[in-house]
Amino acid sequence: MKRLFSFVGLFLVVGWFWGYKLPELPTKVKPVKNVIILIPDGMSMGGYTLARWYKNGAPLAMDDMACGLVRTYSSDAVIADSAPAATAYACGVKAVTKNIGVMPQKAGMPGVPAIVRGEENRPIANVFEAARLIGKSTGLVFTCEAPHATPAAYSAHSPDRKLYDDILEQQVYTGLDVVFGGGWKFMTSETRQDKENLLAIVQSNYIYISNRAQLLALRPGKKVWGMFAPVDLPYEIDRDKEKDPSLAEMTAKAIEVLSANPKGFVLMVEGSKIDWAAHANDPVALIHDILAFDEAVRTAKEFAQKDKNTVVIVLTDHGNGGITIGNSSSDNSYDKLKIHDVFRFIKSAKTSGENLKNLIASNSSPKEIRKTVASYYGIPDLSDEEVQEIQKASTKGSPSLSYIVGPMLSKRSYIGWTTHGHTGEDVPLFIYSPRNDHPTGTLENTQIAVLTANYLRVSLSETTRRLFVEAIPEFEKKGASVETDTTDPNNPVLTVKKGNTTLRFPVNKNIAFINNQTVTLPGVTVYINKKWYLSQDGLNLLK
Amino acid sequence: MKRLFSFVGLFLVVGWFWGYKLPELPTKVKPVKNVIILIPDGMSMGGYTLARWYKNGAPLAMDDMACGLVRTYSSDAVIADSAPAATAYACGVKAVTKNIGVMPQKAGMPGVPAIVRGEENRPIANVFEAARLIGKSTGLVFTCEAPHATPAAYSAHSPDRKLYDDILEQQVYTGLDVVFGGGWKFMTSETRQDKENLLAIVQSNYIYISNRAQLLALRPGKKVWGMFAPVDLPYEIDRDKEKDPSLAEMTAKAIEVLSANPKGFVLMVEGSKIDWAAHANDPVALIHDILAFDEAVRTAKEFAQKDKNTVVIVLTDHGNGGITIGNSSSDNSYDKLKIHDVFRFIKSAKTSGENLKNLIASNSSPKEIRKTVASYYGIPDLSDEEVQEIQKASTKGSPSLSYIVGPMLSKRSYIGWTTHGHTGEDVPLFIYSPRNDHPTGTLENTQIAVLTANYLRVSLSETTRRLFVEAIPEFEKKGASVETDTTDPNNPVLTVKKGNTTLRFPVNKNIAFINNQTVTLPGVTVYINKKWYLSQDGLNLLK
Repeated sequence: MKRLFSFVGLFLVVGWFWGYKLPELPTKVKPVKNVIILIPDGMSMGGYTLARWYKNGAPLAMDDMACGLVRTYSSDAVIADSAPAATAYACGVKAVTKNIGVMPQKAGMPGVPAIVRGEENRPIANVFEAARLIGKSTGLVFTCEAPHATPAAYSAHSPDRKLYDDILEQQVYTGLDVVFGGGWKFMTSETRQDKENLLAIVQSNYIYISNRAQLLALRPGKKVWGMFAPVDLPYEIDRDKEKDPSLAEMTAKAIEVLSANPKGFVLMVEGSKIDWAAHANDPVALIHDILAFDEAVRTAKEFAQKDKNTVVIVLTDHGNGGITIGNSSSDNSYDKLKIHDVFRFIKSAKTSGENLKNLIASNSSPKEIRKTVASYYGIPDLSDEEVQEIQKASTKGSPSLSYIVGPMLSKRSYIGWTTHGHTGEDVPLFIYSPRNDHPTGTLENTQIAVLTANYLRVSLSETTRRLFVEAIPEFEKKGASVETDTTDPNNPVLTVKKGNTTLRFPVNKNIAFINNQTVTLPGVTVYINKKWYLSQDGLNLLK
Repeated sequence: MKRLFSFVGLFLVVGWFWGYKLPELPTKVKPVKNVIILIPDGMSMGGYTLARWYKNGAPLAMDDMACGLVRTYSSDAVIADSAPAATAYACGVKAVTKNIGVMPQKAGMPGVPAIVRGEENRPIANVFEAARLIGKSTGLVFTCEAPHATPAAYSAHSPDRKLYDDILEQQVYTGLDVVFGGGWKFMTSETRQDKENLLAIVQSNYIYISNRAQLLALRPGKKVWGMFAPVDLPYEIDRDKEKDPSLAEMTAKAIEVLSANPKGFVLMVEGSKIDWAAHANDPVALIHDILAFDEAVRTAKEFAQKDKNTVVIVLTDHGNGGITIGNSSSDNSYDKLKIHDVFRFIKSAKTSGENLKNLIASNSSPKEIRKTVASYYGIPDLSDEEVQEIQKASTKGSPSLSYIVGPMLSKRSYIGWTTHGHTGEDVPLFIYSPRNDHPTGTLENTQIAVLTANYLRVSLSETTRRLFVEAIPEFEKKGASVETDTTDPNNPVLTVKKGNTTLRFPVNKNIAFINNQTVTLPGVTVYINKKWYLSQDGLNLLK
């Protein structure tokens, strides 16, 4: 299998590769056509096992793929935030909280190399960008909003996950073939600081859809962008089975569309709100979202088993909530707990804590609250204090009722939680590979990106060298004068002049202008810390 | 590889095999000479990861062996007690709380077959008994007392783990080649209801040792029994490095002794008190015992890698405590926690909570308590309430100070716990096999026994048919008169008479008497629920 592109020697871009070396893998893998990565965000082992018991213990689709563990810490902290965790999976680098697809600004954890000065937060290529350069299709499926951390790490570069405007604009221009999830609110010019109408751009470049019927009716052949909610999709338990697509339905359609490319594809599917349910300590929302995620895994695995040329990688990015079957009520009785003891209320539950706010009016009486909770959760014995807590949360609207009702339900179900935050334990790794040549053992999260790249036979470091050259010094070397045009401060443009030629590179887009002519670039232009990063192709526009 | 013994067709012992079928494995494995099973009792993922960070993140010996998950539930409960959990690993059957090496008295969990009437609590063979029948040596290494649940499941049969007298007597007579751990107190006639002097028996059949120097000086050649404490050994952090052997030292010596057998061996090593530290929520005792366990794994793995004919299986029996890196103090700051935030006090700690009782007199003043806690844990800021709690626990002696000091330390170290009991999540599986032919995926705990048996090429079901025939009906079929002699109620004897022959089978021993002649049997005689279970060889003594 020859490398499809190689720039070593061609370009002598030194610098950040001196300071950072992508990790290696313990075993070699044979190339495959497609890779599907599925991430149950924030899924701890306790939640995983609990979800299986909800289905009476029948094996989950993931079960027979378990093959090892993954270490999740970030560049400078023991416990990862989703942004650096997904950056590790997508790009192969341990980053810092909030970092999306960029080098961290600091290190500090044992074994993480110090950051080379000047290379803080420089963009680094992800596996999607690498795959695209060899003609593969790429797709994202998720239940949060598109610019949220995990989909963002596979499609954008920003020091801060909260910079939704930048991230979403890059997502629109990076060259994705399939996008299914939530977040249309962030695409309209009304909500965006830069006033760009990304929805219009998407509608001109993609088949744009916004409901389940359109999704199911879709036939492969064109790029497709589906936004099924203004922000995030509902939890599985609250999903309108007619109107809202399931994660498995989105996954199946994404595979159908992407697999039309004879060169193959790479797809990332995130069960995004497993994490949110864990933050809230809401076991009902958690279990149903894990089961919905598992159906997406089943869909991917069945495709891979038929296809025989597809690898499926499943892993969470970190633990969350510290959920256990067993809590302080079972200190001495744990070995006698029956399924019924754990599931008595959880099986009666008809809604997430999040959705309960739509069912309890802010001025509800204690009696009404008791009635609603009895009806939606089967809990007949709320204490006065619990009723007050619900009342308070309904009135204020925040903290979400999930954070109140989830723990009430957990307490009665022998389910323990240690925190509303993430946790630092290793997480299980699940892989299906057609030749059964995937690694086992305990991997670093950064090795997942390298594993993905190795299966696809692409090079992440070479892709970074191709797509993210620091532009200003390079243009200046060529004798050009360079400035950052901030006429529109929310839409800065790198402007390069030499002789009669003026090049303009608008931020977050894969396009450039030579005088008045538009050129398409193989990657997006990124502006971070007053530095511009361009593809080598963009630099080459200046003779 | 031909089966070394086969009784199918020879004996038509029907009954319990109708009701229960040993599980199968997803993959076939090639036979090996030796199997070493190492069980870090009650080790949750959070503790495992925490222990690694204590060593600054360097890989643990277990790390590269991670290969799957194991489901830990018992016959009738979601969360396992160590007795049924170890029974699953040793015998291949899901049992009930307290059951040691016997069929459960009830089922109830999904997929667990109902118990055939009359077969409740019947003894079932373990992998040690099966291995012994083909001439392999067997050994147990542990830090608890010998009759405690996990070593018991590999060497005894009792409906109740608390019946130490029965269990230890069977251990002494079952034919173990190496026993290293604690518990001599339970071997002396003074402490035993049956007044048997097991210590004398052991001293006549084994090299008996009781300290580290004797252990290290030991040369292979004879069976050896080492009891290094009256009950359990100290926690690793409290261990006298000169006097008390480490788990790794005991493991190394056990391997040295056992590997002298050209037919091979099977060894079980338990890091017993990892579980106890988790029950107490004592992170210091936990971390040091996990690291000591990992050194034992390293010892076993290095032997196996050199030997090239040994499989090493490492897995805990259940979670415990719900420990997480991250607790309610890090709800919103988890992604910024440094190593130092977590280990500031843990690295200062010089003793376990359990041992603190030896350092704080029952009449200590608050000032003395503060001084001792500052000196042994580096905690300078105990609250008045905390001082009172310590005072109270020191005065009463119970609950152990671990249960008080562990949580105080955890709170200050961003370590969360959900319970003082076991937890129900799947646990990681770690295996080294010389041909890398071990299974991956998610296994039932019962499949571990079958995996062990398959590697050793022995049959658990055939061993049960050979060693544990229900005796009274069989003898009666042969025309004998049978009675249970309870002259000494703590030492019942099965007495069988026919013609001039009187057979006597004392309980819990591998010996029988034909008139006055002593005969050695291949298994121990077990008396449960007024039924006697004997080896087929014992039955054959009556012509």
